[in-house]
Amino acid sequence: MEPNNQENVKKEEEEQVVTPWEVASKGKIDYDKLIDQFGCQRLDPTLIQRVERLTSRPAHVFLRRGVFFAHREFNGILDAYEKGEKFYLYTGRGPSSEALHLGHLIPFMFTKYLQDAFKVPLVIQLTDDEKCLWKNLPVEETQRLARENAKDIIACGFDITRTFIFSDFDYVGGAFYKNMIKVAKCITFNQVHGIFGFTPEDHIGKISFPPVQAVPSFPSSFPHLFTGKDNLRCLIPCAIDQDPYFRMTRDVAPRIGYQKPALIESSFFPALQGDTGKMSASDPNSAIYVTDSAKDIKNKINRYAFSGGRDSVEEHRLRGANLEVDIPFKYLTFFLDDDTELEHIKQEYGSGRMLTGEIKKCLTEVLTQLVERHCKARAAVTDAMVDAFMAVRPLPNMFH
Amino acid sequence: MEPNNQENVKKEEEEQVVTPWEVASKGKIDYDKLIDQFGCQRLDPTLIQRVERLTSRPAHVFLRRGVFFAHREFNGILDAYEKGEKFYLYTGRGPSSEALHLGHLIPFMFTKYLQDAFKVPLVIQLTDDEKCLWKNLPVEETQRLARENAKDIIACGFDITRTFIFSDFDYVGGAFYKNMIKVAKCITFNQVHGIFGFTPEDHIGKISFPPVQAVPSFPSSFPHLFTGKDNLRCLIPCAIDQDPYFRMTRDVAPRIGYQKPALIESSFFPALQGDTGKMSASDPNSAIYVTDSAKDIKNKINRYAFSGGRDSVEEHRLRGANLEVDIPFKYLTFFLDDDTELEHIKQEYGSGRMLTGEIKKCLTEVLTQLVERHCKARAAVTDAMVDAFMAVRPLPNMFH
Repeated sequence: MEPNNQENVKKEEEEQVVTPWEVASKGKIDYDKLIDQFGCQRLDPTLIQRVERLTSRPAHVFLRRGVFFAHREFNGILDAYEKGEKFYLYTGRGPSSEALHLGHLIPFMFTKYLQDAFKVPLVIQLTDDEKCLWKNLPVEETQRLARENAKDIIACGFDITRTFIFSDFDYVGGAFYKNMIKVAKCITFNQVHGIFGFTPEDHIGKISFPPVQAVPSFPSSFPHLFTGKDNLRCLIPCAIDQDPYFRMTRDVAPRIGYQKPALIESSFFPALQGDTGKMSASDPNSAIYVTDSAKDIKNKINRYAFSGGRDSVEEHRLRGANLEVDIPFKYLTFFLDDDTELEHIKQEYGSGRMLTGEIKKCLTEVLTQLVERHCKARAAVTDAMVDAFMAVRPLPNMFH
Repeated sequence: MEPNNQENVKKEEEEQVVTPWEVASKGKIDYDKLIDQFGCQRLDPTLIQRVERLTSRPAHVFLRRGVFFAHREFNGILDAYEKGEKFYLYTGRGPSSEALHLGHLIPFMFTKYLQDAFKVPLVIQLTDDEKCLWKNLPVEETQRLARENAKDIIACGFDITRTFIFSDFDYVGGAFYKNMIKVAKCITFNQVHGIFGFTPEDHIGKISFPPVQAVPSFPSSFPHLFTGKDNLRCLIPCAIDQDPYFRMTRDVAPRIGYQKPALIESSFFPALQGDTGKMSASDPNSAIYVTDSAKDIKNKINRYAFSGGRDSVEEHRLRGANLEVDIPFKYLTFFLDDDTELEHIKQEYGSGRMLTGEIKKCLTEVLTQLVERHCKARAAVTDAMVDAFMAVRPLPNMFH
């Protein structure tokens, strides 16, 4: 097993808990510590420059601004790519709710960039089985949510000639199931207890699940896509809370004759109330949803977005905003594409010349536009398009 | 959970251990005790008479002579059948070896009788995934063995218009997988520890498996067969060591809105060396295989079949054979169809007028004929027939 001190850390310092099901921190998430605990690498500037050189386009904002900040063997993917070897992308979503929030869009926006920049195929797993197991949702409801979520994902602009979206309930079987069995054979209950915290009181559905999320990392799980390409590398863009699944996958891969998947991992998109975890689906006021109206967005930002502005205008003018904790500024670093404008806001707001109300207004505009654009794109996604993306088929345009 | 004192019994009295993976006993298996431990019912003569009345044919030798001796709710199946409701049969095999022995044939011979007598559809599960998980066999090898074993099963004479044979590696997915998830959600690790003895050191493949063997008990796992027949009852003929799987299944069924499967359970076919468990695949001299030559059969019976005959001819003539421990006599109760002839042998051998050599000769003839008949039938099974039995298709002749 690769470095994993998570369990100890979980027990000894409850300040910061990051698992696929829980992200909680008493203060700000310490990402350096997380990299240490998980044993992944920091994405350094030379790697980002290499991406720009190899793809002949500027790096995505999420790369330039450190939203995607950690990796496992991403350099190996680039080495191979440089020699003319392609790879495929794998990402996913657990369809537990109808409406996605902005945090949910981040891996998909970034994956779309990677797909376009590297011209590679992509598989997107909708883990309806996981949500049926973890949330108390009936099978049919998770499948309905999977299709609804697929529309939002498709609205991110994925190329249908290079993208296969699948629901576990529809797709598990055949080569995919064979790989699940191969993986399951390599992991004991004690190991999933250590990696995921499962206990003897947990149902065996949970205990059985990790192989389901592991096997899309192996090209042989998709015979309609990758027959004869068993050595094709896999790159997984995901939030860092999914790292335990793929740490396990990377441990198992060589034992069953497969390549380890590489990872590129993001930090969490913070809640409106402040930077101590990721947004929560259970509190609708902690997040901006892609279904929010312009009025909702404005209200939420004005009422709930934690401000680094000072208590009085005088103090603010004097000391400037605390950008470290300011949510409007943080959100702009994710979604305001223009570097010059962001730098300008940083200077003005950080020095106190710009007030909280002004930066909130700016953010409201940026997010309203983003959400409007998304809604328009989503409205254009028909059921026939969902069927087409989810059809088990060869991808006509895989590597060019 | 239905009565299950197995775990305690296993700890306190190691004399008799019966699990799906181990059948061991210091003396003769005590089937009354097993019925008590497992909480199933004894098949009484009135039930057997009812089967004869309902099917208008004599009961199978295995019923008349108590080979199938226990049940769960078999009376419920008969009640419903009497009112005109049909049911379906489910049995299976774990394909871990190429050659089947006589003990392996017993559930299939009996299931064929049930299929013919009740005119009902049948699903046969080949748990290649289980054998890949338990034995150290590669996926491809278990699938090859599954097809080889399917030939032996087909050679038992199943009606192709009413029989669906499937390999888990081929068939798991869709509605079957959805049912696996529904079942898995209802069982904790602690429960599979109690039922099957799995430990935290076991791999999660084992822990994930019980739902795979459970869900063929539910008609909705076979949409190509039973769509719109969600309430069709299931009857499972099997050896009693499989009871833990179906005790678990019966416990879960009502919680997920399904009918409990009924069971009809056999004792174990004893090893040539004596009646302390079931035959072992690891000792080729403990069993007669369907691939044994006439000479092999003769040799094995003469050399290894445990005899209840006395030490000297004089003593034997005086006291008669001990039929309780005599393997040739025991085997004849399984495979000599003629009741009059069996009774005659019982009298002659039991009184000492017939000697061990004579009863062994008689058994050799019976088994040689049985194995020859089987081999001839198996040789006629083509790959195309295997494909036809395993095709995912509606069964044209399900209920008449």
